[in-house]
Amino acid sequence: MASKKQPHFVIVGGGLSGSLAACYLGSAGYRVDVYELRGDMRAGGIPGGKSINLALSHRGIEGLRRVGLADAVLAHAVPMHGRTMHAVDGSLSLQPYGRDPSQCINSVSRGQLNITLLEAADTYDSVSLHFNEKCTDVDIDGGDVFLEHMKTGETRTVHADIIISADGAFSAVRHAMQRRVGFNYSQNWLEHGFKELVIPAGADGAFAMEKNALHIWPRHSYMMIALPNADGSFTCTLFWPFKGESSFEAIKTEGDLMRFFTKNFPDAVPLMPTLPKDYFENPVGALVTVRSSPWYHEDKVLLLGDAAHAIVPFYGQGINAGFEDVLVMGECMDRFGDDWGRIFEETHRIRKDNVDALADLALHNFIEMRDNTGTRRFLWRKKLERVLHRIFPKWYIPLYSMATFTRMPYTRAISRAKTQDRVVIACAISAVVIGAATVWQWVMR
Amino acid sequence: MASKKQPHFVIVGGGLSGSLAACYLGSAGYRVDVYELRGDMRAGGIPGGKSINLALSHRGIEGLRRVGLADAVLAHAVPMHGRTMHAVDGSLSLQPYGRDPSQCINSVSRGQLNITLLEAADTYDSVSLHFNEKCTDVDIDGGDVFLEHMKTGETRTVHADIIISADGAFSAVRHAMQRRVGFNYSQNWLEHGFKELVIPAGADGAFAMEKNALHIWPRHSYMMIALPNADGSFTCTLFWPFKGESSFEAIKTEGDLMRFFTKNFPDAVPLMPTLPKDYFENPVGALVTVRSSPWYHEDKVLLLGDAAHAIVPFYGQGINAGFEDVLVMGECMDRFGDDWGRIFEETHRIRKDNVDALADLALHNFIEMRDNTGTRRFLWRKKLERVLHRIFPKWYIPLYSMATFTRMPYTRAISRAKTQDRVVIACAISAVVIGAATVWQWVMR
Repeated sequence: MASKKQPHFVIVGGGLSGSLAACYLGSAGYRVDVYELRGDMRAGGIPGGKSINLALSHRGIEGLRRVGLADAVLAHAVPMHGRTMHAVDGSLSLQPYGRDPSQCINSVSRGQLNITLLEAADTYDSVSLHFNEKCTDVDIDGGDVFLEHMKTGETRTVHADIIISADGAFSAVRHAMQRRVGFNYSQNWLEHGFKELVIPAGADGAFAMEKNALHIWPRHSYMMIALPNADGSFTCTLFWPFKGESSFEAIKTEGDLMRFFTKNFPDAVPLMPTLPKDYFENPVGALVTVRSSPWYHEDKVLLLGDAAHAIVPFYGQGINAGFEDVLVMGECMDRFGDDWGRIFEETHRIRKDNVDALADLALHNFIEMRDNTGTRRFLWRKKLERVLHRIFPKWYIPLYSMATFTRMPYTRAISRAKTQDRVVIACAISAVVIGAATVWQWVMR
Repeated sequence: MASKKQPHFVIVGGGLSGSLAACYLGSAGYRVDVYELRGDMRAGGIPGGKSINLALSHRGIEGLRRVGLADAVLAHAVPMHGRTMHAVDGSLSLQPYGRDPSQCINSVSRGQLNITLLEAADTYDSVSLHFNEKCTDVDIDGGDVFLEHMKTGETRTVHADIIISADGAFSAVRHAMQRRVGFNYSQNWLEHGFKELVIPAGADGAFAMEKNALHIWPRHSYMMIALPNADGSFTCTLFWPFKGESSFEAIKTEGDLMRFFTKNFPDAVPLMPTLPKDYFENPVGALVTVRSSPWYHEDKVLLLGDAAHAIVPFYGQGINAGFEDVLVMGECMDRFGDDWGRIFEETHRIRKDNVDALADLALHNFIEMRDNTGTRRFLWRKKLERVLHRIFPKWYIPLYSMATFTRMPYTRAISRAKTQDRVVIACAISAVVIGAATVWQWVMR
């Protein structure tokens, strides 16, 4: 590639999507500067206490595979083959995610994944990483990126031919886009917050519960989940309303806390020796759904990942959707060369409706996870779905499987799932009618 | 009222809702400072070229009446008793708005209305008006309002016990609210822009078209409207897509413009002698729907009018909804005294769902106005509505009438309209069935 006319990229945000995008651009030979608000995790350790483990699945893995990172990331992951539901009486029930153990989702620590991606980005000569640099604003048309150093307070302006915004749900770049006529935007907060807790590993690194599962304590209006870590611990997340009778707000003392946990999560309490400390030290996180459109401005700016479309975590697709954005951008680079206007327009066109549909799925699945996963009806439905999928593996694919184990666009998966369900219901009704007719004929004989 | 403990109010924005709110607070004896971005219209004339005339109706008038301003405002207004549709062939059809001429909407110039309100606010000793003061940001918890003088560039900070945000669709106060966890927000732009044009008065101040009507040139994917002014002129507004084959973007020359107008608005062209000048001098405005929630923060901040809920202008309710916000706040002041937390919470509770429903009505009515108002089916439906309303004046009230001539909450008006329509359809079906049965009986005799 000729180096003279190549655009200079600034990637705002060196989180997951940003550092993966840096790998994509670096591997194509582009000059890239990445500005990340936080310090360098590779040196300074992983910030803890307010993160939810990631569930990496097919779309995310394919995004990593294109730049040769899938195996390195999966080496640190713990496969989860299904959901384990914990009832209040301590009884367990398991729902496999796929039709066989190869269909699993992968519990990954956000920090470890980020380090792997930053290390990979740093191997490209044309990629430079800058840390403790907060982007405060951008000039969309001019390509200026305004930075403030988090340690020295020093401010400076860097120029980019193209800005990739991967600065997350509170993106400063999107904020600048938002001031433009024609940029549609919404932010909607959940009334539930979340708190990170921990089930530590046993003395010998043993897992205190089934290792290869995502654990759920569904309690109707709230829930706790736990995802395994490679070191034998589980990262737990309590999703609970901010306010109200049963809520984060209502817990004032260690006594309040232990009463609530002992009553509602009795089987988990003995596994959580540091519960009070974790609870009162870790902050309550908030969950937001962000939608925006368009994600790009001419051939100058592209929003990716949470900056374009933050979603709630309940379909396990947040990081997968972010990595698929980058993957689609890469596929558009293959199709359109260095016509960045086309690349951005097409990336947005391919992705926008799909991540909107995913946002709705994720919101809906919160209700399903906390309300239904424990019910008999839900368990039977899931069982029926698996049976149908086994009998007609090509034709009947559960929605969760299409979202998690394929790259089928989310909108198509949703409409296909609706069609499948309609056919199943029609068949069931026909079967009942034929059965009744047969019985009738037999009675009348 | 005791003056010691009374809160000091800052109203950000001295536009329509802001200056009316100043009158409400001033008349209750509160100390109020109003900071307005623009210069003082009372001295400097009314900025022109990018405004849409207002259609003041019952809700807005009631809002004015509470502080004794209804008559003063209506003195400058031109009543409009119905819509006059202009077909491409120049033929006209009139649809009355109400069941009699007393049910009308009132064409009001935004500038003139604002001057009346500012003059009224200025009569209260405890109200001070400040112009050319741009609010750049606020500290929601601390009550600091950051101002920049538009002429001197000087910045300063004023403190408020309570901030009323009436700074419009691009509100700086709402912008600060938006950075807070739990504040839901959306902005959605229409693909249509608008341009102000004019049909001047005749030499003797005569109206060039029917004076007491809102004129519409419905052309399916776009439309032009014209509202009368007291001086004999009409303010026209062309609503047209920004981009595409038939759009603002496509008009490059005076030739393009005149071809488009002569073909589509042939009866208007002879009335618009300054069309090319107006078209090329006036900017294309953009139309946004803004939703936010909650509109308040404790007893410290309240958003009102466009700052809380900008809507598109097609139901003629924007200013009426803004004034009704202020009126509801006033009614809550009656109920809760100086418990501002309760006043704000209740104002929001009463208004929020209603203005959301109104936002949808306004968006929907754009399609109705440009696509349907010219069709025979629409004219017949409106006729049927009027007949039913005349026969059952208490029971059958068209939705437009409930929104425009009553203070019934918009949500209740919408659900009532649905019920009415269902009953009418059920009666029609019954009539057909009974008729058919009668005929059948007669035939079989």
